[in-house]
Amino acid sequence: MNKSRVEAFTDAVIAIILTIMILEFKTPDSAKLSAIFPQIPYMISYAVGWLFIGIAWYNHHYMFTKTKVVTRKIFWINNTWMFTTSFIPVATAWIGRNLNAQGPEIFYAIVYFLWSLAYAYLTHAIAKANEEAGHTEIATSIRDMKIYRFLTNWKFVGAEIIVWVLILIFMPRLQMLLIAFQVIFVGGNVNQDSDKLFS
Amino acid sequence: MNKSRVEAFTDAVIAIILTIMILEFKTPDSAKLSAIFPQIPYMISYAVGWLFIGIAWYNHHYMFTKTKVVTRKIFWINNTWMFTTSFIPVATAWIGRNLNAQGPEIFYAIVYFLWSLAYAYLTHAIAKANEEAGHTEIATSIRDMKIYRFLTNWKFVGAEIIVWVLILIFMPRLQMLLIAFQVIFVGGNVNQDSDKLFS
Amino acid sequence: MNKSRVEAFTDAVIAIILTIMILEFKTPDSAKLSAIFPQIPYMISYAVGWLFIGIAWYNHHYMFTKTKVVTRKIFWINNTWMFTTSFIPVATAWIGRNLNAQGPEIFYAIVYFLWSLAYAYLTHAIAKANEEAGHTEIATSIRDMKIYRFLTNWKFVGAEIIVWVLILIFMPRLQMLLIAFQVIFVGGNVNQDSDKLFS
Amino acid sequence: MNKSRVEAFTDAVIAIILTIMILEFKTPDSAKLSAIFPQIPYMISYAVGWLFIGIAWYNHHYMFTKTKVVTRKIFWINNTWMFTTSFIPVATAWIGRNLNAQGPEIFYAIVYFLWSLAYAYLTHAIAKANEEAGHTEIATSIRDMKIYRFLTNWKFVGAEIIVWVLILIFMPRLQMLLIAFQVIFVGGNVNQDSDKLFS
Repeated sequence: MNKSRVEAFTDAVIAIILTIMILEFKTPDSAKLSAIFPQIPYMISYAVGWLFIGIAWYNHHYMFTKTKVVTRKIFWINNTWMFTTSFIPVATAWIGRNLNAQGPEIFYAIVYFLWSLAYAYLTHAIAKANEEAGHTEIATSIRDMKIYRFLTNWKFVGAEIIVWVLILIFMPRLQMLLIAFQVIFVGGNVNQDSDKLFS
Repeated sequence: MNKSRVEAFTDAVIAIILTIMILEFKTPDSAKLSAIFPQIPYMISYAVGWLFIGIAWYNHHYMFTKTKVVTRKIFWINNTWMFTTSFIPVATAWIGRNLNAQGPEIFYAIVYFLWSLAYAYLTHAIAKANEEAGHTEIATSIRDMKIYRFLTNWKFVGAEIIVWVLILIFMPRLQMLLIAFQVIFVGGNVNQDSDKLFS
Repeated sequence: MNKSRVEAFTDAVIAIILTIMILEFKTPDSAKLSAIFPQIPYMISYAVGWLFIGIAWYNHHYMFTKTKVVTRKIFWINNTWMFTTSFIPVATAWIGRNLNAQGPEIFYAIVYFLWSLAYAYLTHAIAKANEEAGHTEIATSIRDMKIYRFLTNWKFVGAEIIVWVLILIFMPRLQMLLIAFQVIFVGGNVNQDSDKLFS
Repeated sequence: MNKSRVEAFTDAVIAIILTIMILEFKTPDSAKLSAIFPQIPYMISYAVGWLFIGIAWYNHHYMFTKTKVVTRKIFWINNTWMFTTSFIPVATAWIGRNLNAQGPEIFYAIVYFLWSLAYAYLTHAIAKANEEAGHTEIATSIRDMKIYRFLTNWKFVGAEIIVWVLILIFMPRLQMLLIAFQVIFVGGNVNQDSDKLFS
């Protein structure tokens, strides 16, 4: 497939998903500054959503810059991954009304879980396709991405699920903190060569 | 015309059409997880719409990567095709309220029919323009696309219309299944060389 | 300036303007097919808006593919032109509620008039900048575009204004027809070489 | 990083932020032309927002065309800058309801202040990264941009803050004028070589 067109299409979809979140930010009817305060929970979940999608884009961009192969299968997993990403604005909007309510927090956790699954599978498929095409080095550097190593580390995933369930039961509002923490420390760490300028 | 700019413009329009469908996903007022259940019909029609537009983009991308010619006529048929595509979010939203209601299902069928017509004509025009410019091989591979062969196979189209009318009369909800089935088996099959990386 | 980035930015803005018009298409609460009929006026104004913006993009694309120069001044006139274009969805939405009401039709006419002014000035500035940079041939082919020749033909503009005022006074609904007619016959005619594939 | 993909992503996000502002322009229920008059305050704040984001894009485009380096750090500051930009439509919408109300005007001033901070830091980081990579000349021309020189001129910033506070206390409506004035005279002045066509 035409790699740059798939990238451009993905970029457009992610950019729109990122930006439509602001549409949920309702301007107050009142003209008092304090009328904006009830929007603070949404502002928090919006900031977390932006961070999340920003880091996702960064990792995605690194992976696609590296890959020499874009097969039909990769295109479809990529599409599925974008589909799960498109639920983040919905989950963000719902959670933004009440940061401590169990319902929206569980919904967010489900979206997050499906998103992780899709992302891990996408990484796996891209690495494998490059390997099969003889680009072993590229496959290795894609599999070396911290986000992928965590998503496929069953000890880490197991511990995470336990923490997550406890949080959802006892203190749902902690989830936003947990996600922010995780995307920064896991997703934010990309291989050293990500700083280089690829043309 | 400047092919890459027409592609970029089409990509942007399709990406937006794809993504605004999520805006119809209303977050519940209640904070109970069960409050999301009434959205399940919309989730189904949203998934079908995403699949549909994804496959459409994939076929379109293949065809445009191949073509050596983009005439004014092709631009206008392409525009008309995007115009019909822009009704998919509307049809998806309406159907998402009641998967088994005849009204929205007929509306969806009309959109689907007009879309198919526009797509078949676009393929025809691109193949013909390439032929006239001496690129017979390209014309052949574009006409060989499964989606085009089905859309121009009158036996298939005839049988389909009969099935469709029966479904709309007796069990409208089956239409989503029919569309999902069809886009996967007809639209999802692109020529073997679609996996190769065109730069 | 970096021409391709200005083009990409313009394309994105125009694609969004084009596509958000569909958001005004309200899905009926009722599940009867006939519930879609009250949307027919909007469908008409939407079709005209799509045609209008499509033709505008086509002419703009031709002009930008030709130009060798993109100055700061051109960037700003281009921005102003996009600003006037951004009112088309608003005018389209308002007119779509009542095709024969004078208020929305006058508003549409004002938007159309300002848009034409901005477009003519943009063409003028691009032609002039190319001329000053020694690309006389390009300047000539840009000035030769039918849309520009009509917008700067005072007899034509004068006659048009008279017809327009009469229509707005006596039969506002004719305006959509007049615009459709005009964009097709004036805007749709681009120089012969627009069919050639520029890389 | 892949500079052109970061640019394309930024362009898409900015284009969407720019364009969704028109969604706040509510079409009147009435069909009288005068029914559009209550929208005039929004039209003013919309025009200022468009001017603001247009100038921001112009400066950003200049800076990114020049830079030879896009590091992870720059990517994240760029993302933060886009995040602050995404609040402009919200502030614009709120202010558009009542140009003279203190609450929305203070909110706008906060957004403007955070935006300036993010933009100045982005410029600083890009200049520094280029310097460290040995491109001293590029670093100098980026630091020479008028917008950066004003944002880091403490006398100017100090005077501005005083004027701003006085305006917010005594005549909030003046803020739109102050912003328009400032973006035109400070942001609109880019280095002389911005007119040259970079490929």
